[in-house]
Amino acid sequence: MARFKLTIEYDGAPYVGWQRQPTHLSVQQVLEDAIKKFSGEDVTVFGAGRTDAGVHAMGQVAHIDLNKDFTADRVRDAMNHFMKREPVAVLEAEEVSDEFHARFSAEARHYIYRIIDRRANLTFDRGHAWRVYTPIDSDAMHEAAQSLVGLHDFSTFRDVQCQAKSPIKTLSKIDVIRNGQEIRICVSAPSFLHRQVRSITGSLVDIGRGRKSVAWMQDILEAKDRQMCGEVAPPDGLYLTKVDYPQ
Amino acid sequence: MARFKLTIEYDGAPYVGWQRQPTHLSVQQVLEDAIKKFSGEDVTVFGAGRTDAGVHAMGQVAHIDLNKDFTADRVRDAMNHFMKREPVAVLEAEEVSDEFHARFSAEARHYIYRIIDRRANLTFDRGHAWRVYTPIDSDAMHEAAQSLVGLHDFSTFRDVQCQAKSPIKTLSKIDVIRNGQEIRICVSAPSFLHRQVRSITGSLVDIGRGRKSVAWMQDILEAKDRQMCGEVAPPDGLYLTKVDYPQ
Repeated sequence: MARFKLTIEYDGAPYVGWQRQPTHLSVQQVLEDAIKKFSGEDVTVFGAGRTDAGVHAMGQVAHIDLNKDFTADRVRDAMNHFMKREPVAVLEAEEVSDEFHARFSAEARHYIYRIIDRRANLTFDRGHAWRVYTPIDSDAMHEAAQSLVGLHDFSTFRDVQCQAKSPIKTLSKIDVIRNGQEIRICVSAPSFLHRQVRSITGSLVDIGRGRKSVAWMQDILEAKDRQMCGEVAPPDGLYLTKVDYPQ
Repeated sequence: MARFKLTIEYDGAPYVGWQRQPTHLSVQQVLEDAIKKFSGEDVTVFGAGRTDAGVHAMGQVAHIDLNKDFTADRVRDAMNHFMKREPVAVLEAEEVSDEFHARFSAEARHYIYRIIDRRANLTFDRGHAWRVYTPIDSDAMHEAAQSLVGLHDFSTFRDVQCQAKSPIKTLSKIDVIRNGQEIRICVSAPSFLHRQVRSITGSLVDIGRGRKSVAWMQDILEAKDRQMCGEVAPPDGLYLTKVDYPQ
């Protein structure tokens, strides 16, 4: 038996999310079906994080175990061959020790959220960014976001369906950076609560639009009250970009 | 009557091309239908260039005449409202003199062609770039491309269906620039022959792949023979980015 670490990119728009479901197509199923086709093996793909329906990944990480002998390059190329029609790609495959676990070995996760503020409809970025009709102030958003850095009770930014034991998490870094019409929220943490990034993004955009003050961010964080959270941002703009592991 | 200049962005993938056709949906028809819906007027949209099926635009220019009184901002917002479901957007509308003609007043056209060289399938850029499986040498392509700059007989790079009176054209500029996995061919000219950019791109990629030498580009240009041209690049990677007019 050999264990492989896979680095995976996908457009989440056509899928019900990362996790396999009985009735709708998931990213996990696309990957597992491709593995079955080239190896004949029924394999479970373990992902570092379960992205929601419509959420994308530039660097999701997963691991699989295979009984037959394959090189890592063969695993990558064979999976890509059988996923040609799906917007899912294995960027890298490498053989790892059987102590590696995509989810439990992960030390940090990195996400970006893409917002485009313009009056015109999106064309190329349709489904790949959140279009905000009114101009937004990214500097105010960046300033407000800094109050979230560190160890906090993130109950305000936690989905009611979140299954984590505790709402207390450490947010390592959050930067709001504008480049032309595009605003990127870059956020890093050891782990996240369910819909935490989209909840934070929605509230930051309320500030960017001028509906709320910069100081409001700290107020709602300290309230530890889900009712205080702004609109949850749509999945379209969210990307899991990278997962860190010990060397 | 007032004339408006429209700057238009579109994803060409779902359309039969720019030009209206009786049986399939074109970009021109999407625009004309939107104008009809907000103004009630049957209008012809005149474009600066007729892009082929699957070819995109970041800055196509067109003009329209309207009998009723509308501000330019109202024209832009009303068209975008009625095109919400299509990946077509009016970025700018401005009122111009009735001497302005999108096609005949144009002084220069600018295109880019996007190539991504990687083994993995495309995900986010599916239909928006040409994926080349093997690594390509963009420096060799840039060097080879310089032999095309200036006034030449471009018969080699002209589609058999091209309706231009002469194959003699001036190519103002062509640069091949790599950024990570993406290679962009940026090309400018007063006007182009039918499929000229895609024909040039296909031949440059033959050089980038090492199948042909840098010097081969000048040989096939001087041959003035369509049979000498490499594979024509697919429409997916081609974007009309800008059209220049006199101030």
